[in-house]
Amino acid sequence: MSSIKDILIEMKNLSELMVDLAYSAVLFNSKDAAKEVSKLENKVNSLNYEIKKQSLVAARSNEDAEKLTALLEIAEAAESIANAAKDLADIVIKGFKPHPVFKMVMEESDKMIISVKIQHGSELSNKSLGELFLANRTGMRVIAIRRDESWIYGPDKNTMLYIEDTLIAKGTEFGSDLLRKLASGKISLDEISDLIDE
Amino acid sequence: MSSIKDILIEMKNLSELMVDLAYSAVLFNSKDAAKEVSKLENKVNSLNYEIKKQSLVAARSNEDAEKLTALLEIAEAAESIANAAKDLADIVIKGFKPHPVFKMVMEESDKMIISVKIQHGSELSNKSLGELFLANRTGMRVIAIRRDESWIYGPDKNTMLYIEDTLIAKGTEFGSDLLRKLASGKISLDEISDLIDE
Repeated sequence: MSSIKDILIEMKNLSELMVDLAYSAVLFNSKDAAKEVSKLENKVNSLNYEIKKQSLVAARSNEDAEKLTALLEIAEAAESIANAAKDLADIVIKGFKPHPVFKMVMEESDKMIISVKIQHGSELSNKSLGELFLANRTGMRVIAIRRDESWIYGPDKNTMLYIEDTLIAKGTEFGSDLLRKLASGKISLDEISDLIDE
Repeated sequence: MSSIKDILIEMKNLSELMVDLAYSAVLFNSKDAAKEVSKLENKVNSLNYEIKKQSLVAARSNEDAEKLTALLEIAEAAESIANAAKDLADIVIKGFKPHPVFKMVMEESDKMIISVKIQHGSELSNKSLGELFLANRTGMRVIAIRRDESWIYGPDKNTMLYIEDTLIAKGTEFGSDLLRKLASGKISLDEISDLIDE
């Protein structure tokens, strides 16, 4: 049963992340982000298959079956959300002429999504998100971390950051700028505190 | 053209909000949140109709038409996301026997969504979100505000809060607890700072 729970948590996290990534792919005309959405959609599909299999094995009674049915409907809806996000990302992959309106949408949207890699010399490395107070310092929420070929979704305060990690973060334009400078080692954590106190 | 931009921003904000609300409706088995999702889906449908109409009026050349087509595909994808969120919420509206696994998903998910009403005596009233530093103080991000019969989506630092406003906010369990106490006037902003410094 714990594995059904884990699958459901992952389907929820992935489908939410896909919606975020798909919109940012469109607004920034980023094929990379769009391709990531496609990859994640395959992952959600296999999770949906897996949860069906596990539920069939777990059902012991009619009562069980009834509750598990609701659970499968939810997994199905999570997959629909993931599919819709993929449709959005596909518009970017097939290539489109961005209407000038997108630039305005991007500029007026107070939520930006950026992708930054932690460089040598950055103070972000070898620290946990909790220790860094990143959300408080920069207003940026890290929604996912790519480490080598694997992903960490919905990182929490105990999640450690390392050199070469790619952070996917959501927040304001000002915060995005701070986070990019922190990740490249161009400014230190102390300098950020000074900036904010000003 | 500015009205096409505004419609697109609203479709993006609404569809993202609907995904958030739909998952919270399922996890907390909340018919209220689920009904809100249904209402929002109607709104997204009419926005999609509106953007089609406006685009037809705006197209002056083949070049225009090409760019506007991409824009309409994006609006269509936003509506698909909204529809998928509605499917999720409908599971709650038709009623289901929650599997014990939901409680575990809710407890282990580090993102909670809560709805709190600002009561008389709360320090939140008559202040802007920026002035309150609510995200920094509580870790909670206000995603929407219901004021009487209308909604404010994606509020920014200039958005004012008033008594009787209902805030829809997303964050940790700890932050949710703080925000509930602030909204009911049980604790003051200073007491929160003390709690965090401890």
